[in-house]
Amino acid sequence: MSGIIELPRPFLLFIGDVADPGYAKTALGLRDWTPEHCVGEWALPGNPLRLGLPVLTPSEAREQGAKSLVIGVAPIGGALQPLWLDALLEALEAGLDIVSGMHSALADVPVLSAAATRLGRRLIDIRRPPPGLPVATGQRRRGKRLLTVGTDCALGKKYTALSLARAFQARGVAVDFRATGQTGIMIAGRGIPMDAVVSDFLAGAAEVLSPDAAPDHWDVIEGQGSLFHPAYAGVSLGLLHGSQPDVLVLCHEHGREHVIGYGDGYPLPSLEDAIGLHLQHARRVNPDARVAGISLNTAGLAPEEAAAVLAAEAERLGLPCADPVRGGPSFDRLVDACLSA
Amino acid sequence: MSGIIELPRPFLLFIGDVADPGYAKTALGLRDWTPEHCVGEWALPGNPLRLGLPVLTPSEAREQGAKSLVIGVAPIGGALQPLWLDALLEALEAGLDIVSGMHSALADVPVLSAAATRLGRRLIDIRRPPPGLPVATGQRRRGKRLLTVGTDCALGKKYTALSLARAFQARGVAVDFRATGQTGIMIAGRGIPMDAVVSDFLAGAAEVLSPDAAPDHWDVIEGQGSLFHPAYAGVSLGLLHGSQPDVLVLCHEHGREHVIGYGDGYPLPSLEDAIGLHLQHARRVNPDARVAGISLNTAGLAPEEAAAVLAAEAERLGLPCADPVRGGPSFDRLVDACLSA
Repeated sequence: MSGIIELPRPFLLFIGDVADPGYAKTALGLRDWTPEHCVGEWALPGNPLRLGLPVLTPSEAREQGAKSLVIGVAPIGGALQPLWLDALLEALEAGLDIVSGMHSALADVPVLSAAATRLGRRLIDIRRPPPGLPVATGQRRRGKRLLTVGTDCALGKKYTALSLARAFQARGVAVDFRATGQTGIMIAGRGIPMDAVVSDFLAGAAEVLSPDAAPDHWDVIEGQGSLFHPAYAGVSLGLLHGSQPDVLVLCHEHGREHVIGYGDGYPLPSLEDAIGLHLQHARRVNPDARVAGISLNTAGLAPEEAAAVLAAEAERLGLPCADPVRGGPSFDRLVDACLSA
Repeated sequence: MSGIIELPRPFLLFIGDVADPGYAKTALGLRDWTPEHCVGEWALPGNPLRLGLPVLTPSEAREQGAKSLVIGVAPIGGALQPLWLDALLEALEAGLDIVSGMHSALADVPVLSAAATRLGRRLIDIRRPPPGLPVATGQRRRGKRLLTVGTDCALGKKYTALSLARAFQARGVAVDFRATGQTGIMIAGRGIPMDAVVSDFLAGAAEVLSPDAAPDHWDVIEGQGSLFHPAYAGVSLGLLHGSQPDVLVLCHEHGREHVIGYGDGYPLPSLEDAIGLHLQHARRVNPDARVAGISLNTAGLAPEEAAAVLAAEAERLGLPCADPVRGGPSFDRLVDACLSA
């Protein structure tokens, strides 16, 4: 559909010369969440990093059905490395498209652009604003929608949405994970990078991303930013309005007190205030919107501490409170609360 | 500065073959608000519409100092008319740049693009997303800022901001009108079209638009959309956060009950609810933010009815309430309230 990026799968995951797994999050995320769409991995000679997939050249990957090579690493600065060019050209020659979430566009590299044109291959830059998106209509759509929202960026909205979608599926619920960021789009194989959308079309993009569906179908939508974030709140509100969620799951990192990267000028809101403001906006487009529970990132805690914090927060707020990374009965209760009508 | 569109002035206003003043709002707005930057007007032969400025050909306008021709009309659909091409080429040949707020880009018309390149002239498309905008820093800036906000689109946010900036100036206050939409940018000669900004940079664009200033300097910023609008709330919130307003003026049209163009599914909020939600967001970035008063569009009322409505609303809300188009003592009270610290 117009405006939605669709990625040719399965993938060959390219990690180039990046040996530090900390810079290979995209590749690791794809391996963990959609191994069925990854035929193999490929690195430059001498790179010791391995993902645990079959090591394949582009030609071998193509023979095994791969449709595209995904650049699965993001060096500091997010720029395409000149050292990778020969490898990327080899992939194009082997019949693979190239998928990139780098800041610098593949299409702006003349040698890649020329080779892709000559070979009839696609260069897919996930950060490029997708064309053809409409202004939002505000019209209610059928089907159920869940949106993960947060007190801040980078605390688990994508992971929570993926975990909930997987849990819904395990219960036999018809569900689609709807991706709104670069890594999410690679995992889902499709989606819209909300932060790259021209702002007039923000809510319209969210409408296109979770279209009219069967009444018992769920879209689980990856949230972006935060209504409380001094730079990204606009993206969050456009996504919230266009998604028309029936259910919100509020994500927070235990112990985080300030907006990450903004010094101490921006304290995070209380969970109660965050629930209130999100519901106020969500009910503008869907009067039945409710917060089903809290997804609490407890990565900094020992298991018994985490369990105590989750129990205390659930008690305090009167809502299920779970860490999807830890799972367990509290996560089951969160899933129950999301699905209970 | 990077990201801000700057227009070469003064202008020659071009109205083409458009004889209906209803489609010449840009030209009329420029004539009314910045006659000192309009050396003349120019129409195609046979068009009876006159703006009241000197009628000049592009060459004559150039001799009188004109730097650019502004397309001052917007036919239905917002597309560039093939009938205008010879006139636009004549303007380029005469040494004028061309400024357009049309949906279709000047630069996408090969004959114009080629002529501009050959002649060293600029084609300035105000709807194009400006490059080079930063992510918002959220850091407080010096100087005072006023933002007009609204219960809906198209009810007077631009007019209110222009009127307040003019009134501030008349009182000897150092003030800049900061334009965020196509017509506002033409009137101000510079600005950023917020609806064309990539959403990651929304609040950052607003920060760039009203930079650090002297403590007693005011930026009066043209609002966009509405926090209650199902399509444009994201733009409104990004602009609100990035503007860090000290003062908000809430704009509303008397009698309007629903979001314009969205049927009856989206009732407008009460003024009290609108004040509350705007302050909640504004105080996230500026704890001192306050609503100084209401700008009420009473175009549908007779003068005595309007006066009664303005007085009743001011009494009910305990805030100055004025119609800038009508001016008068109630508008003076609104200006007082904006400037009182």
